[in-house]
Amino acid sequence: MNFVELIERKRDGGTLIPEEIRWIIESYTADKIPDYQMSALVMAVFIRGLDDDELAAWTAAMLHSGAVLDLSDLGAPAVDKHSTGGVGDKVSIPLAPMVAACGVAIPMISGRGLGHTGGTLDKLETIPGFRTALDAEEFKHRLYRHGLVLAGQSESIAPADRRIYALRDATGTVPSIPLIASSIMSKKVAEGIEALVLDVKVGRGGFNRTVATARTLAKTMVGIGSGYGVTTVAFLTDMSQPLGREVGNACEIEESIAVLRGDGPPDLVEVVFLLGAEMLVLGGIADNAASARERLAETLESGAALEKFIEVVEAQGGDPSVVEDTSLLARAPGEHVITARESGTVARCDALDIGVSAMRLGAGRETKESPIHPGVGITVEAKVGDRVGTGDPLVRLRYDDDSRLAEVIALAERAFIIQEEPAEPPPLLHEVVR
Amino acid sequence: MNFVELIERKRDGGTLIPEEIRWIIESYTADKIPDYQMSALVMAVFIRGLDDDELAAWTAAMLHSGAVLDLSDLGAPAVDKHSTGGVGDKVSIPLAPMVAACGVAIPMISGRGLGHTGGTLDKLETIPGFRTALDAEEFKHRLYRHGLVLAGQSESIAPADRRIYALRDATGTVPSIPLIASSIMSKKVAEGIEALVLDVKVGRGGFNRTVATARTLAKTMVGIGSGYGVTTVAFLTDMSQPLGREVGNACEIEESIAVLRGDGPPDLVEVVFLLGAEMLVLGGIADNAASARERLAETLESGAALEKFIEVVEAQGGDPSVVEDTSLLARAPGEHVITARESGTVARCDALDIGVSAMRLGAGRETKESPIHPGVGITVEAKVGDRVGTGDPLVRLRYDDDSRLAEVIALAERAFIIQEEPAEPPPLLHEVVR
Repeated sequence: MNFVELIERKRDGGTLIPEEIRWIIESYTADKIPDYQMSALVMAVFIRGLDDDELAAWTAAMLHSGAVLDLSDLGAPAVDKHSTGGVGDKVSIPLAPMVAACGVAIPMISGRGLGHTGGTLDKLETIPGFRTALDAEEFKHRLYRHGLVLAGQSESIAPADRRIYALRDATGTVPSIPLIASSIMSKKVAEGIEALVLDVKVGRGGFNRTVATARTLAKTMVGIGSGYGVTTVAFLTDMSQPLGREVGNACEIEESIAVLRGDGPPDLVEVVFLLGAEMLVLGGIADNAASARERLAETLESGAALEKFIEVVEAQGGDPSVVEDTSLLARAPGEHVITARESGTVARCDALDIGVSAMRLGAGRETKESPIHPGVGITVEAKVGDRVGTGDPLVRLRYDDDSRLAEVIALAERAFIIQEEPAEPPPLLHEVVR
Repeated sequence: MNFVELIERKRDGGTLIPEEIRWIIESYTADKIPDYQMSALVMAVFIRGLDDDELAAWTAAMLHSGAVLDLSDLGAPAVDKHSTGGVGDKVSIPLAPMVAACGVAIPMISGRGLGHTGGTLDKLETIPGFRTALDAEEFKHRLYRHGLVLAGQSESIAPADRRIYALRDATGTVPSIPLIASSIMSKKVAEGIEALVLDVKVGRGGFNRTVATARTLAKTMVGIGSGYGVTTVAFLTDMSQPLGREVGNACEIEESIAVLRGDGPPDLVEVVFLLGAEMLVLGGIADNAASARERLAETLESGAALEKFIEVVEAQGGDPSVVEDTSLLARAPGEHVITARESGTVARCDALDIGVSAMRLGAGRETKESPIHPGVGITVEAKVGDRVGTGDPLVRLRYDDDSRLAEVIALAERAFIIQEEPAEPPPLLHEVVR
């Protein structure tokens, strides 16, 4: 095949046949197509899009570039959850042990933070000793033994996706619905799961600014999932303000433990229950959402979810004593409190501004090479709809060094609008796509 | 500057400011931007286009990436001619000595053939000893001494264009009007000329399939030229069938010499006169096209044009005896004649099919690394509007080896349609853009 001719066809809005797409992905992964040609094609795909057949072929080629787990002898339903990423989105961390405690197996492969959004792996690694780099054998062993494993993408899963993602990141071709959908779904299908619950974030703190975009992405992923027999349900949840109160890494582990103790902030707990209930229903453990929610509540009351979390932390080399004593987690020494300049109702608590502030404090990565500061972070003390008086705290910034503090304070202040009139908090759930 | 942000802006149809474009071209030429990022940007430019200010900045940055000739002490008007390329397009070779013999200086920088279109340099190099790789000093010396120099693009002229062109060629981003226009014009303005005549080919044998596209390209180049004070006039001429009768390399030199002897085929001679007359008018040597045509005709009748050609061939190391004895030029040993299967009028003699046929015989390059076979080629014996009888020759294929002959015969036969009804030859000149 002549790669330039394939680039030209896609450039002009034409269609690539499945055999051509398979050849492209295989050749690129085998170093037979140079980066500069692939990036031209990917930009053409970004602008021209992929139709349903192209998308299916693109996803299939990335999926089959690596291993696909066979969980047929697992003896339990395998269901995973994936979020498109947001600010303060630590949902997976309390959700996974709650759902696993009910008997659904979760082979969870998570990512790292990039830009203003956090990553589950970075958060988990603030638990001293916790290992997220597991090879395929250990991954499967942990899953079979504990019904839950929390790890990063191994070399063997969808290597084509890893290469193409790195190229997209450097060439301005990340936010494309077909490229995002195929990237996520190729990895998730490779996990060997039978069902998947997606948390598609909507609002300035996530990738999708509007419900319409989020719905398109959700439908695209649900369509890919069904093509592989993976029942996929997408929840479009709010990301206009941070989820929960903590934004950072160690502080989000602390808040996750609070959820497992039955003491989490209501918005975070509600999203955990929404998604968790669907996982139980999809896994055949509960007949409907109401009974699933009861089962999940029981895991908190009985301590079963917290026990499962401790079990998995220990199994993956982490120090379980942080669960009993969260002061063992990293905590940056400096604190600056931003307070309300006037009394009123919080009308805006912008997830993007807060997320970028946390990133600049060191909680996230501005580039892929940036180191994470585990103990820095932001505690959000007032959210949309809350009444505040003059001098009441809005956010607490925890920092290791004050080199960028002034800039972060200005940005975090900008996140808030306080008005005299009342304000309604945004709906947590916008829509469900099945 | 953050290159990914610039890619993203152009990707989304936004505008780059001149300072950003200058930074991009300078950084890429200085190896500070990797090919894979540049190719993503170029694809975005290809699809989204460049507005007038962007185009001016892009051209300026390429122009100023290298040397700009200063011909202020030349003592003669400097005018060049450039063609967008076609099949059998050897116009420059007889035109340049004719115009130079009238007193217009021509610093002509030509290109090589790629794909189905030929290149002036490849044709000239079939003259034994002829050197087209001249450094800046020799280039200027030849021009000042002979009023004409025929050479390839030196390292010092628009190096950014050379690098970007190579990248475009490998990434399916060649046929873009702003990218073509800026590539041509940056090199032409660098020649230090005061006026330029463009031959923008229209039809299947050239880049522009329609008059509309050709007109847009012509207007774009005329606009760039005027921005630099280089008066630019574009002739939109026909390339639906080959120009003249010879398609190849040595055979096109032979046909060019025939023109200089006053014995060229009428369509080729007419295009030479059209463009040459404009060059004389632009150079201030003639008041109008009619008197310019008389001057050009005199150069043929007096032998002055042929003498100028011999002088330049000799000056650039070529063997001038080929002019007297064209049998000294390469000529492939094999000949296959395709004849008419029925009598009638030629309704189609497709330039693209003939051009690709010549390329496959070895006259052109399928890839940049392909060697040129100087002696192979095609003689077109019948063109649109000509009456032929059964068995009359349509084309003569001259080949070095017969490995691809069957394929070429099939393609060259397809180039022709013969019908009972009469057929009009296409107009040679479609339009003039000033």
